[in-house]
Amino acid sequence: MAGKPSRGLADVVVASTAVSDIDGRDGRLSYRGYDIGQLAGTVSFEEVAYLLQRGTPPGPAELAAYRAELAAGQDLGPAVRGSLPAVARAQPPMAALRTLVSLASADDPGTDPPGRTDPPGPAAPPGPAAGRATAARLTGQQPALVAAIHAARAGDGAPPPGPEPGLGLAANFLLQVTGRVPAERSAQIFDTCLVLQADHLMAASTFAARVCAATLADMHAAVVAALAALSGRLHGSANEQVMRSLAAARAADGDPVAAAAGQVTAQLGRGEPVTGFGHRGYGGPDPRAELLRELSAELASAGDDTIHRMAARIEDIVAAERDLHPNADFYAATVYHYLGIPAGLATPVLSVARMAGWTAHIIEQHADNRLIRPGSAYVGESGLTWIPAADR
Amino acid sequence: MAGKPSRGLADVVVASTAVSDIDGRDGRLSYRGYDIGQLAGTVSFEEVAYLLQRGTPPGPAELAAYRAELAAGQDLGPAVRGSLPAVARAQPPMAALRTLVSLASADDPGTDPPGRTDPPGPAAPPGPAAGRATAARLTGQQPALVAAIHAARAGDGAPPPGPEPGLGLAANFLLQVTGRVPAERSAQIFDTCLVLQADHLMAASTFAARVCAATLADMHAAVVAALAALSGRLHGSANEQVMRSLAAARAADGDPVAAAAGQVTAQLGRGEPVTGFGHRGYGGPDPRAELLRELSAELASAGDDTIHRMAARIEDIVAAERDLHPNADFYAATVYHYLGIPAGLATPVLSVARMAGWTAHIIEQHADNRLIRPGSAYVGESGLTWIPAADR
Repeated sequence: MAGKPSRGLADVVVASTAVSDIDGRDGRLSYRGYDIGQLAGTVSFEEVAYLLQRGTPPGPAELAAYRAELAAGQDLGPAVRGSLPAVARAQPPMAALRTLVSLASADDPGTDPPGRTDPPGPAAPPGPAAGRATAARLTGQQPALVAAIHAARAGDGAPPPGPEPGLGLAANFLLQVTGRVPAERSAQIFDTCLVLQADHLMAASTFAARVCAATLADMHAAVVAALAALSGRLHGSANEQVMRSLAAARAADGDPVAAAAGQVTAQLGRGEPVTGFGHRGYGGPDPRAELLRELSAELASAGDDTIHRMAARIEDIVAAERDLHPNADFYAATVYHYLGIPAGLATPVLSVARMAGWTAHIIEQHADNRLIRPGSAYVGESGLTWIPAADR
Repeated sequence: MAGKPSRGLADVVVASTAVSDIDGRDGRLSYRGYDIGQLAGTVSFEEVAYLLQRGTPPGPAELAAYRAELAAGQDLGPAVRGSLPAVARAQPPMAALRTLVSLASADDPGTDPPGRTDPPGPAAPPGPAAGRATAARLTGQQPALVAAIHAARAGDGAPPPGPEPGLGLAANFLLQVTGRVPAERSAQIFDTCLVLQADHLMAASTFAARVCAATLADMHAAVVAALAALSGRLHGSANEQVMRSLAAARAADGDPVAAAAGQVTAQLGRGEPVTGFGHRGYGGPDPRAELLRELSAELASAGDDTIHRMAARIEDIVAAERDLHPNADFYAATVYHYLGIPAGLATPVLSVARMAGWTAHIIEQHADNRLIRPGSAYVGESGLTWIPAADR
């Protein structure tokens, strides 16, 4: 195919979507028409997941039924439970998640047919109802899976506590990871983190899910592709890197804020990119980062504010030197730190939030599908004649 | 983002590549400058995989060393061996492959760091040498994995025989799946099938792998995304559907060729697409299908030619009614049938071939990377005000 490659597809509009939208100039992000500034702190992650997956906000009865579907998803199925300890000990968390979400299709009555007679034929794409049910199941399952992987890797490998039926998804996750029922305000803040990171247009993981779904592969397959893409350090694992950089600077001798400043100044001097800054979609500030900064400051003010002050200093330096704003990964990292989430779980936590958006995009792709198969420009040699190995 | 969506990206050039090229008008496909007509039947799949992954044909010493790398990959690692029986019995073959290739990163010294101390940080992208080693390992592992999954699902679940060190990858696969050392000509023909299906530009699975690799996710992650995409019925599982349609027509009462003709005529009458026909890349014949038809005819002439005659009749009808040519999936299905490969393994077999190309594309993407993150056109509502659930 001729033509200049659109490397990175930054200038290419690949899909129509009604799931989320940004106004990059004004720094606004909205989910199905609702600005995230309006949702953050007032609407629960469960309601936002429902909104994304099913198109409209839930009424009281719908929300209660949806919460029950999520709770059922938290109850890991037999195939996943059987393999989880060995997988979690053999692979880092993001790889283990990829493996176990892939395996979880065996536990989902809605997608791959059960039974082990001669391999069943390729399934027809699940209908909208099946897609919605699987989306809820995956959304409830993801925090339980992350917590179970964390528990299996830590200490004596005992399963995590809970979940407790009276708590929401965010509070239960903190309970399962930290071992303590969180303070109400901590649970609210984490819930807001999940809301802020529930969807973001054609992020690379979401796009990978849509490419996969567009072959009419099922929802589990598409979500596995998304998890695979999220693990890259130019995407989801940026938050983990931010936290590890901050931890490294803090562990150095002397004043940690000065150490963080020195670290980032050296990076800028070498012309390196600074993880957690800039986003292709926003010319100005990233609205998620603005809201996460406030939450980070609030949590810092209640105790040791060192990590937040280090982050704020880095933000000032990068703004002055490069005119770049922090993105959602940057202050998500410090908020997670204050909530007691280990750095190694930062990217899995992002997957807990993004599962809501991925599944919404997969449902949308399946509902009005066309195979996504771009062209390429060939730049290699042509018309070569093969010489047998023995004659070389 | 404004602009009309390029749905399916059919008109968008997404990457420069030196891996493969087609001339859709003349019906030619080439791998790194070598026309597949020149490779088919004369060059082994191992040499083609080397060519795709490492850029040039191997000399005798390089080929011997590469064969040893593939053989090492055939030896499944401890993490995969431990989970394989349970996974293979719980999931259909393509889902089991996705799960087990994801798990296999635990057995690969080249990618995810081993050890289970506190989760390791996100790995830097593997360098070219590590990428090449993992590519060879994955290419050797894939046929062994497909055969082991098949064996675990069948009969008493005993592991497959072999592989035998004196046989090539194609012959060993047939041995492991059918339980018999194949006739030399059967092994040659299957080897040619693998050569013909080793790569195909930006096929949806390859593109999914590149989207994933472009986040700097590692090779296992990207290959898992490719497997997820291959499972869709608009992509890799088309070959399985072709075989199941032929089997259904053959099982009907009366003349099977007439039954196949009746089946496809009815489909055409209902305006349905016919699986195995047409390809976005070719205006005329698909060169792979032309070569596979010859192989199918050769195998048919040695025994019961019913399935081949049924396929040929379908080809004639679709050509007359729709002016469409068969694609590679169509006659691959009949060749696999004659080689004794069960219909349920047709898509996994395609993954054995395509692993060579996927890994070559991942190496190419990592070597000159940019995040692939397209735009979208928002088509939903805007400026909505959230009403609390209790007030609805």
